[in-house]
Amino acid sequence: MSDDLTEAQSAAIPDGYAQLNWTRGFGRQIGPLYERTDGPGEATLGFRVEEHHTNGLGNCHGGMLMSFADMAWGRIISLRRSYSWVTVRLMTDFLSGAQLGEFVEGRGELLAEEDGIFTVRGRIWTAERTLMTGTGIFKALSPRKPRPGEIAYREEA
Amino acid sequence: MSDDLTEAQSAAIPDGYAQLNWTRGFGRQIGPLYERTDGPGEATLGFRVEEHHTNGLGNCHGGMLMSFADMAWGRIISLRRSYSWVTVRLMTDFLSGAQLGEFVEGRGELLAEEDGIFTVRGRIWTAERTLMTGTGIFKALSPRKPRPGEIAYREEA
Repeated sequence: MSDDLTEAQSAAIPDGYAQLNWTRGFGRQIGPLYERTDGPGEATLGFRVEEHHTNGLGNCHGGMLMSFADMAWGRIISLRRSYSWVTVRLMTDFLSGAQLGEFVEGRGELLAEEDGIFTVRGRIWTAERTLMTGTGIFKALSPRKPRPGEIAYREEA
Repeated sequence: MSDDLTEAQSAAIPDGYAQLNWTRGFGRQIGPLYERTDGPGEATLGFRVEEHHTNGLGNCHGGMLMSFADMAWGRIISLRRSYSWVTVRLMTDFLSGAQLGEFVEGRGELLAEEDGIFTVRGRIWTAERTLMTGTGIFKALSPRKPRPGEIAYREEA
């Protein structure tokens, strides 16, 4: 858990989650985002709906849910292959809304990998309620150094 | 043109565009966004790729392009019907990337409207290059007071 968080913020993060240290770009702008490692190559992403995520109705903006889907579903490629990647196609079905203060979670399931093209089935939910389901097509670009939580990661001596 | 902009910012906004005054929530967080009114019920949205829109490769993040698609394509419902609306499904194909500093534009074309369900075909581009195409399914919620640029808008005496 980061030392940068206030006590209230830390209390608001569910057990097992740690903040992703995305310090620049769009990932930082729409954060903070959190990750829970569920085993080698297995992880769930999460965020709490704050005011800067809301739409005109005071619920989580659809753009935020889609951005989160892109990150949470595409994450499986990093976890399994330690490649950088880009999104080729994303199909998202909006099933229910998330309200201010709710903790939203998401992860993807790798359906197929062929010629560097990954097909991922994904889900986003809060508590027992599914918010979004969909499919992402992602393209691997190039291998990079494996990071903690990824299958290829080895602790250095 | 807003007085809040520096001279450099104003110079960077193409002719005919005015900044959308989204002062809260997700719209503000990922902004600034701009709109060019092309006639009653006709408008194009735009934004310039800034550092807070970028991914790890330094290009515009796919989540930003999808969020922008949601806004730029769904906008047609506000323009034509002055209803508030939510997104039901969004399908986005990523054709090309946008680089830091490029001005990105987008708009939707209303294909069908039935029982409060709107089907919109959309495109996002920068200069001559198409970045994203796709289809959005949106649901109208309730009528609201028409705003300037919308077909139902009438200037008050």
